[in-house]
Amino acid sequence: MTSIPPAEPGPVAVLGTGLIGTSVAMACRRAGVLVTGWDPDAATLELAARASGLRAAASLAAAVEDARVVVVAAPIAAIPDVVEDALEASADAVVTDAGSIKAPIAAAVGARRPDDLPRFVPGHPMGGSERSGPGHASAHVVDGIVWALTPTERTDPASLARVEALARTVGARPVVLTPDRHDRLVAVVSHLPQVASTALMGLAAQEEADEPDLLLLAAGGFRDLTRLAASNPVLWSEILDANADRIADAIDLYVEALSGLRDRIARGDRDAVRDAFASAKHARMRLAAKPQVRAGVAVLGVEIPDEPGALASITATVGAGGVNIEDLQIVHSAEGGRGQVHLTVASDAAARASEVLAARGYDPARLA
Amino acid sequence: MTSIPPAEPGPVAVLGTGLIGTSVAMACRRAGVLVTGWDPDAATLELAARASGLRAAASLAAAVEDARVVVVAAPIAAIPDVVEDALEASADAVVTDAGSIKAPIAAAVGARRPDDLPRFVPGHPMGGSERSGPGHASAHVVDGIVWALTPTERTDPASLARVEALARTVGARPVVLTPDRHDRLVAVVSHLPQVASTALMGLAAQEEADEPDLLLLAAGGFRDLTRLAASNPVLWSEILDANADRIADAIDLYVEALSGLRDRIARGDRDAVRDAFASAKHARMRLAAKPQVRAGVAVLGVEIPDEPGALASITATVGAGGVNIEDLQIVHSAEGGRGQVHLTVASDAAARASEVLAARGYDPARLA
Repeated sequence: MTSIPPAEPGPVAVLGTGLIGTSVAMACRRAGVLVTGWDPDAATLELAARASGLRAAASLAAAVEDARVVVVAAPIAAIPDVVEDALEASADAVVTDAGSIKAPIAAAVGARRPDDLPRFVPGHPMGGSERSGPGHASAHVVDGIVWALTPTERTDPASLARVEALARTVGARPVVLTPDRHDRLVAVVSHLPQVASTALMGLAAQEEADEPDLLLLAAGGFRDLTRLAASNPVLWSEILDANADRIADAIDLYVEALSGLRDRIARGDRDAVRDAFASAKHARMRLAAKPQVRAGVAVLGVEIPDEPGALASITATVGAGGVNIEDLQIVHSAEGGRGQVHLTVASDAAARASEVLAARGYDPARLA
Repeated sequence: MTSIPPAEPGPVAVLGTGLIGTSVAMACRRAGVLVTGWDPDAATLELAARASGLRAAASLAAAVEDARVVVVAAPIAAIPDVVEDALEASADAVVTDAGSIKAPIAAAVGARRPDDLPRFVPGHPMGGSERSGPGHASAHVVDGIVWALTPTERTDPASLARVEALARTVGARPVVLTPDRHDRLVAVVSHLPQVASTALMGLAAQEEADEPDLLLLAAGGFRDLTRLAASNPVLWSEILDANADRIADAIDLYVEALSGLRDRIARGDRDAVRDAFASAKHARMRLAAKPQVRAGVAVLGVEIPDEPGALASITATVGAGGVNIEDLQIVHSAEGGRGQVHLTVASDAAARASEVLAARGYDPARLA
């Protein structure tokens, strides 16, 4: 991460006005930044204009004409084309994209418009929703998210600074790393979990064919592990395809870790199993205690008493205190049962939330 | 699953008054069933007696003297000894246990007290909490859980019926299967998820050593997948050791599933990847739509509007309607963002919850 003083990011052009493009436009408008937009689908563009207050342009070229930053929020396969057109249609604008894989996009753009690389900043705003289209867009989609920026060796530092300023302006948290490193890291922490979840659900479905009662015995842990398996197959097959080598490497490492545990279990080396579990537990506790991905939020842990209405009482207490709960997780034990609730609230509201909870007899702990 | 008319299960003796033993005692007392208890630790027993209203016995033999059913809720390694003592100390009582692995316990008891096998019903009440000890016990711990009963070939059907009646009396849902099948199924849906989660967290911790920013890019999916990794290492190394062969088999199947996906990804077969993801998604949607493991509950899905206090408003609305929320999950998209909340409520309160939510403008969908 670098820290560069903010610079005026607008006017901004958004090419592709689906969920992410329109959400970025809304967050720009909220910050008073002018936005023009273009989408190959006229109805999508019109809906986005109505929802966000962006100025609908008649063509891609018209959209980027006065822009200082152009955000390309197209489907992965279309990004290199749209970035190329945007670089060609403008002389001074900085162009960034919103694709979830970076190295192949950086390489494709470099091959097509090598002389314009100083103006291209590959990016990945790490927010989203299972919903799609401008009708579901909201400035909240980019609030506090990590916006990865992955300059190439030829990206001009001033271009990077301009996109960083845009990310901060819309309330996101810019994180700068190389395209390769981005793709390697998301392979481990985003794509591998997706594959692990899908493989587990696939295996259970296959076993269930012979054992219809299998899922009767599946408790909260199994549900946690397989929740991601319900994600969009088309979107994910494209992402995995675009980052295939990195993901294959990550799966290999994962299979190695599983096989290591398997061998310890199979040879009855209970101490070695316990050590591996203890070290993973330690790492997970550090993760839970760390600030979440999102900047500007705090996490409070509150024990859920064993009494009717306990959860409603906790959320109502916080709400009555004027604090918005941004996220809520019930943290279960390995075998189900009750536990703690983790409340995510804005950092500057954490003290107030703790105060109103304590006044009602709860004992909130600030976890992050 | 068999369905046998309820029979009077009491008096009940509980040997081992930790979290599970004391919770079973409390649920028995709630149903008006007499309970005696014994624990090798006098302080634990005294605490359990105060918390649950069980009658503390001076010895194991005294505890089982008048019992019709004896529940052995000892640590896994101690179960065969305590079951043996309980069978020896009583002539007519049916003995069951609460160990999370069944075949090795059934075999150990069979080897020691072959003539008493008709009176032994290996069991596994599939509830719990990350907390332990009688101080955290509650009748809620067994409310609606699956109580697996795994009779051996020599278990008397009348013994099984008596333990099934006990399970129903305490509010649990008896599910009958063989010890081997139980151990094979929990290896897939309980033990494998634990291993998969621990291996993923271990891998990420190892990669983080070289890439300190790794977890910055970890969003909700990674957190879902690694939550189980925070479980108790001592407890889990014992469980995995006791079910080692089954778990090794389950890990082998999982590695096979992962390798199959890996190869499809690596060779760029996007259609095959999409098909695998689509079929896992389908299975996961069926799981989400199925009744949860717990009998007697319903799950309502409610969209969370993008506005401050939305979650508090939902839970407060349900609470004000006199309905207790038993569980709550925020269902995120693969890449974070807002989504749906899944509310678990008692089946007979589902209509009321839907009514009060609809009256406030929500559109709840009954998912299970």
